[in-house]
Amino acid sequence: MTDLSRFAVNQITTRNWSLPEAIEGYARHGVAGIGVWIDYLDAVGTKAAARHIRDAGLFVPCLCTSAWVNLADRSAYETALAENRRRIDAAAAIGAPCLVVVPGGLAAGEKNLESARARVEDALATLLPYARQAGVALGLEPLHPMYAGDRSCLNTFAQCLDLCATLGEGTGLVADVYHCWWDPEFEAGLRRAGPERILSFHLCDWLVPTRDLYQDRGMVGDGVIDIARYRQILDDIAYDGPLEIEIFSKRDWWQRDCEETTRISIERCAPFVAPRQTGGPV
Amino acid sequence: MTDLSRFAVNQITTRNWSLPEAIEGYARHGVAGIGVWIDYLDAVGTKAAARHIRDAGLFVPCLCTSAWVNLADRSAYETALAENRRRIDAAAAIGAPCLVVVPGGLAAGEKNLESARARVEDALATLLPYARQAGVALGLEPLHPMYAGDRSCLNTFAQCLDLCATLGEGTGLVADVYHCWWDPEFEAGLRRAGPERILSFHLCDWLVPTRDLYQDRGMVGDGVIDIARYRQILDDIAYDGPLEIEIFSKRDWWQRDCEETTRISIERCAPFVAPRQTGGPV
Repeated sequence: MTDLSRFAVNQITTRNWSLPEAIEGYARHGVAGIGVWIDYLDAVGTKAAARHIRDAGLFVPCLCTSAWVNLADRSAYETALAENRRRIDAAAAIGAPCLVVVPGGLAAGEKNLESARARVEDALATLLPYARQAGVALGLEPLHPMYAGDRSCLNTFAQCLDLCATLGEGTGLVADVYHCWWDPEFEAGLRRAGPERILSFHLCDWLVPTRDLYQDRGMVGDGVIDIARYRQILDDIAYDGPLEIEIFSKRDWWQRDCEETTRISIERCAPFVAPRQTGGPV
Repeated sequence: MTDLSRFAVNQITTRNWSLPEAIEGYARHGVAGIGVWIDYLDAVGTKAAARHIRDAGLFVPCLCTSAWVNLADRSAYETALAENRRRIDAAAAIGAPCLVVVPGGLAAGEKNLESARARVEDALATLLPYARQAGVALGLEPLHPMYAGDRSCLNTFAQCLDLCATLGEGTGLVADVYHCWWDPEFEAGLRRAGPERILSFHLCDWLVPTRDLYQDRGMVGDGVIDIARYRQILDDIAYDGPLEIEIFSKRDWWQRDCEETTRISIERCAPFVAPRQTGGPV
């Protein structure tokens, strides 16, 4: 039997399940944790969801995601900050130690990526005291460079790590092999981050060919990412945190029965999610 | 009238034109240079092509591209090296100062990106003496990270610049805004490279949304890349080399009449391709 105590399924992986169905489904299969998405959570309400998750005995590695803050319009920007405060509260209510930050790319009509990045830094600095107060970390997730135009202007692990250093306590990294595997500096970044800066580590795979920029991620094992290698690096740096599968797949896994997707997620991730060996008896 | 003396059109932009048609078409529109592709060149033969290009008065910034060298099978690898020597000769024959290096990503079945990168370095080191002898530089082109799995494991400007430093004389960079615009280190890389390391600079645009990973690049001005900014950086570092439009667009520009594509390429690039101002009279 695989020890699944570190293993979580991010609920977007089983997109057709409601939050209650995902909670029941993952628990039934022995998965220990659930990565929660805000729209599924809102459909149920934080109070009911928190109780259900607790009763099922699941841990919550993260709440996905922040509302986009990269807006040039001032009033839209303030509205986004308020929405993010609400999401920070929601994360706290369900026991999620972090809110995954996906801040948006360029604003409409904008071409200045540097200023977009500066705006994101300002927004995070503004939100941070509130997040600290709530005990919810801001989990910066570097998104693949192909999303720089629209989804996120945070695109490399090193960039996010630098930003964490600037922002300070209450920030960390959510790393996903899908977004970072190509990066010649990813391994050095993980080693530089150390275990305390990594809030959750996402598993996924890169398909060759990839047929869609957004929703064609591969099941662990079906692509070209050397996941065993990253697990080894995480062990090297003594990372003991969550290992969470997250798949966007409108052409394949989202078409399948969620039971099947859950079962296969466990099978495929099992070799990579065991607790870290900390040495035998002395 | 715009001075087009630095401006080249990479012939893949007008994919439906043969090489002779592209030579005639570009010359007719006042374009000064043509980026040549090996398959179009082979269809005509280097001797006839060289004569035609010379008679038309065009310069050739580069020959595209190297044959993939990232092959685990030894005999396929040797065949690829031989093919690359042939392409180096072809570049020399048409007066192209560089062969654009696109080395392939992972080999079939491979997951080790580090060893793929090491193999590419070995292959380039092997080819380099031949290229030096022929007077053709190896133009390392960082390709967008979304191509790391299949097309190229050279994915950032900094990575390619480091590789040039390792390989030494006879190597340089071919930079394309499409591949590099998202990179927080791109500007620093250009400044570190300096003008002598940049062999050609490609213009293109990133569409939002991008609907295809390979062949949905945008016409200059239709996307989100701040091309004026990169032109300013190139001026800052005193880069005087080619400025070359290169568009892969099966859904749009490849469907259009090549005359129209050429005309609009010139219109759109005109603001960015003027000769560098080197100061007024003393």
